[in-house]
Amino acid sequence: MANDFRTVALVGKYQDPGVADAVLGVAAFLRRRDLTVWIEAGTASSFAGGDACGEMHDFDEIGAGCDLVVVLGGDGTMLHAARRLAASGVPMAGVNRGRLGFLTDIGRDEAVQRLGEILDGHYKSETRFMLEAEIVRDGECVATMLAFNDVVLSKGDTGRLIEFDLFVDGEFVYTQRSDGMIVSTPTGSTAYSLSANGPILHPTLRCIALVPLAPHALSARPVTLPDSCCVELELHPPHHAGIFSDGHERFDARARDRLRIRRFPKPVRLLHPENYSYFAMLREKLHWSAVPRSP
Amino acid sequence: MANDFRTVALVGKYQDPGVADAVLGVAAFLRRRDLTVWIEAGTASSFAGGDACGEMHDFDEIGAGCDLVVVLGGDGTMLHAARRLAASGVPMAGVNRGRLGFLTDIGRDEAVQRLGEILDGHYKSETRFMLEAEIVRDGECVATMLAFNDVVLSKGDTGRLIEFDLFVDGEFVYTQRSDGMIVSTPTGSTAYSLSANGPILHPTLRCIALVPLAPHALSARPVTLPDSCCVELELHPPHHAGIFSDGHERFDARARDRLRIRRFPKPVRLLHPENYSYFAMLREKLHWSAVPRSP
Amino acid sequence: MANDFRTVALVGKYQDPGVADAVLGVAAFLRRRDLTVWIEAGTASSFAGGDACGEMHDFDEIGAGCDLVVVLGGDGTMLHAARRLAASGVPMAGVNRGRLGFLTDIGRDEAVQRLGEILDGHYKSETRFMLEAEIVRDGECVATMLAFNDVVLSKGDTGRLIEFDLFVDGEFVYTQRSDGMIVSTPTGSTAYSLSANGPILHPTLRCIALVPLAPHALSARPVTLPDSCCVELELHPPHHAGIFSDGHERFDARARDRLRIRRFPKPVRLLHPENYSYFAMLREKLHWSAVPRSP
Amino acid sequence: MANDFRTVALVGKYQDPGVADAVLGVAAFLRRRDLTVWIEAGTASSFAGGDACGEMHDFDEIGAGCDLVVVLGGDGTMLHAARRLAASGVPMAGVNRGRLGFLTDIGRDEAVQRLGEILDGHYKSETRFMLEAEIVRDGECVATMLAFNDVVLSKGDTGRLIEFDLFVDGEFVYTQRSDGMIVSTPTGSTAYSLSANGPILHPTLRCIALVPLAPHALSARPVTLPDSCCVELELHPPHHAGIFSDGHERFDARARDRLRIRRFPKPVRLLHPENYSYFAMLREKLHWSAVPRSP
Repeated sequence: MANDFRTVALVGKYQDPGVADAVLGVAAFLRRRDLTVWIEAGTASSFAGGDACGEMHDFDEIGAGCDLVVVLGGDGTMLHAARRLAASGVPMAGVNRGRLGFLTDIGRDEAVQRLGEILDGHYKSETRFMLEAEIVRDGECVATMLAFNDVVLSKGDTGRLIEFDLFVDGEFVYTQRSDGMIVSTPTGSTAYSLSANGPILHPTLRCIALVPLAPHALSARPVTLPDSCCVELELHPPHHAGIFSDGHERFDARARDRLRIRRFPKPVRLLHPENYSYFAMLREKLHWSAVPRSP
Repeated sequence: MANDFRTVALVGKYQDPGVADAVLGVAAFLRRRDLTVWIEAGTASSFAGGDACGEMHDFDEIGAGCDLVVVLGGDGTMLHAARRLAASGVPMAGVNRGRLGFLTDIGRDEAVQRLGEILDGHYKSETRFMLEAEIVRDGECVATMLAFNDVVLSKGDTGRLIEFDLFVDGEFVYTQRSDGMIVSTPTGSTAYSLSANGPILHPTLRCIALVPLAPHALSARPVTLPDSCCVELELHPPHHAGIFSDGHERFDARARDRLRIRRFPKPVRLLHPENYSYFAMLREKLHWSAVPRSP
Repeated sequence: MANDFRTVALVGKYQDPGVADAVLGVAAFLRRRDLTVWIEAGTASSFAGGDACGEMHDFDEIGAGCDLVVVLGGDGTMLHAARRLAASGVPMAGVNRGRLGFLTDIGRDEAVQRLGEILDGHYKSETRFMLEAEIVRDGECVATMLAFNDVVLSKGDTGRLIEFDLFVDGEFVYTQRSDGMIVSTPTGSTAYSLSANGPILHPTLRCIALVPLAPHALSARPVTLPDSCCVELELHPPHHAGIFSDGHERFDARARDRLRIRRFPKPVRLLHPENYSYFAMLREKLHWSAVPRSP
Repeated sequence: MANDFRTVALVGKYQDPGVADAVLGVAAFLRRRDLTVWIEAGTASSFAGGDACGEMHDFDEIGAGCDLVVVLGGDGTMLHAARRLAASGVPMAGVNRGRLGFLTDIGRDEAVQRLGEILDGHYKSETRFMLEAEIVRDGECVATMLAFNDVVLSKGDTGRLIEFDLFVDGEFVYTQRSDGMIVSTPTGSTAYSLSANGPILHPTLRCIALVPLAPHALSARPVTLPDSCCVELELHPPHHAGIFSDGHERFDARARDRLRIRRFPKPVRLLHPENYSYFAMLREKLHWSAVPRSP
């Protein structure tokens, strides 16, 4: 179904002139295929000549008007683009500029070849989900966040642990004293969650991992729930904490604030080259052994 | 839907005369409700008068002829009954004789009351899945096993680790050197898997956890996969190993044997009283803190 | 050697009027034994009549003039007193007001009896060590800290990890990307370090544990070193971090700051009742199983 | 002090003809330095011409008559030699044939150069300790073992956990249900113990780590004790288990058998080249990051 793709947007690593060559190269390639090329406005302003790569548009316009978004950068760039494009459902493909990322799985040197294959309809399409978080204070929602990897409640700038309750679908589960809690999607399960001994969750799984950070109780363990659950964390007085989305956006939560996390209804669609293998990527990124098998 | 239940079978802890009182009490209760009572043949022979509790039948007959099976014992008794009744799909409820189990969640002292509620149609029905394992040697299946908790490949009676390959849906994933591997259902995620730092998986999740036992590589981590996956472990020469189903049934695997594990197609159906709470059970069994919340 | 103890100081939980009864009771008991009673000035001001318990003195005077310090509070109170009295080497005994602490191992209800035994010379004396930390900026020491449990380098109020080098006795060991690092004494090994999967170190061991917090590298592991080592952590630009001593005192470290940690030369001396058992305390505090043995 | 070394013994990997070149090369080098060369009898028989390398002697004779033992193989060869030479205290140096080992830290290609430096007196001498284990049955010692890495109590060839008591210096510590327990020296702390989340212990530390294998209790944690402790594990009926020394020697323990472990009184002496660095070895073997520091 190659003719699905008529307008393609390029999103590069934010404020990084080093992304110029890759963006220019992909833009030229797309034009040679008679495609309409858009460039995300922030990317266009990151390097000289960026504005000549294509029509400049912001993320909302890109979400509404494009058939494909090509992200050039690292996983952080992809996380950012996914959050900004979440409402649109536009498919995305990721080109990594350095070593491969979990999300930006097309190598720079093979970008044109692999993108060509995708444009020709030879791709693997994958559906993932994001989380949306609300911070509820005195019964009112005072902030919202989107996260593709994780929403983290973190003790922030203090040497002491925080104390909070966990509720799932309105039912009290436990009170935890810890440095905080990671609420992770399968996509985030190979990111921060993994550093805190969270489980690796295959990206097609529809589940959410709750991974405590340095919990005081020795019996605390990561728990994995259906993605249909509503997860709520409520800070006990006098504790306050930071709430982070993908390690990036930040909200300062006060005692009694309730962090409510649910699956975002609109899925994320990633396109991978046909030779993409999740396990191969895990093996490489996590340095798992791949001893050649004896014949 | 109380009239669904006409014939109820009782299964007690194997060869344990101590289960007599509980079995006799439940049998009398069921007869008072004009239900036909069957007793599993092995249970009937475990104590004097067991054969007078009801019609004696083996597991196959119970699976074919009963509307409900009441298991009286610990989780081990339930695991055994589930494996023996797997092909039938008959619903099961568990009465624990000591402290509550994860699967036998009805306390002995409340057995008659809770079973009465279930018979009146007031219950929570839950669908879980089992694993079936094949051991393939020289291209032929030489043994099969069913497991409700887990299938474990274990180094067995040697001080040395074993080496094996992991394949998922036919794709090579990695070579691992370890004491072995736990392949666990969500039901098994609070059993042996948890001792080996496996993730707790909510019982409604359709996924399988692969949890390495003392892996040599420091980067090894538990991985959770969709339950639609075919998981295969193949022993490298000269390693041999034991294969265990629910820590119980055993098969001696040789070098190059391939352990193939898939979801068993027929689901397990558990009936719980309406006041059943998975999280309450976790909290109690795992000694999680339940600090009273300040008002 | 009961006549070793002539002047005894009382230190209570800071600003906690609830400690009054315990302090007054112990003070009266000590006076009945014809001992001179001092009260730490901050404690004296925490409740009405505190100043009448004994001669008011600050920590420096107590360190110089007392033969024994009785701490009444939790482990936090003991940690604070130990840091303030570090230079003196005066022995300390701890009375806990709630459930027993690791350091305050005398129960409130048995305080008078156990302190009497100690004053009679029936005690176990234990020597522990503290850590001293220097923060070195541009070659100059800009701050110092003492810690009885741990010195922690922590990412502080940001969603991102920090990056720093570890040096031991001047030798580069590794670069770590993580949420931070706990440098713990054996005393601290049952505190924060344990939440981060650090090893429990018997209090008589002369070693220091380095325990990473959510390290990015899956191969990172806690490392235990001789207490004669000089441990240094140096922040890579542009990372800044918080440095905490016993989860309490705080210093804001900048990029290129070097945190230098060594054993403090003066030991801490703790006096325990003769029935004190480290393992019994571990067992109780960590909820380890103590199944009665069959005869 | 080069003239300390007059008689040097060579010990190679057991029954491995591939070690021939290395042994022959080192033997020739030693003879050129006018040293007396002995060869361990088993090594001599492992390859053609082995008996011509030097005087053939068994381990007891080597321990009594040599000034230095050069081990050529992997860490397993060194562990074996250390156990066999434990009573002698003769210093050992290790040449690795493949990638470097923790104990065999001289690379094959640099063997002659580094051994020459050692013979010239330019070396780092390191003292480590071994464990001796007794199995006590009905009050009598029925077996003894030596271990340089670890003594392991392991459930052996069954799918079920074992139950045992831990005593330290005669004091009951806890009852544990698990797959077993690793009792490790600092030398063993980078071996099997590390796979089971045991702490890395610097080799100069005088301590013993107790590391549970898949413990049933979630609050179980590794504990590190002074090496002066007597550690005892006693199997509860009806459990039996295997006892392994360095993953190699094996004893079948029955219910009520008591495994008693103490530091072996005679130290092990290892000689390293002067450029040896424990941390460099850790970094390389454990794949720790060694990011070049920015200037």
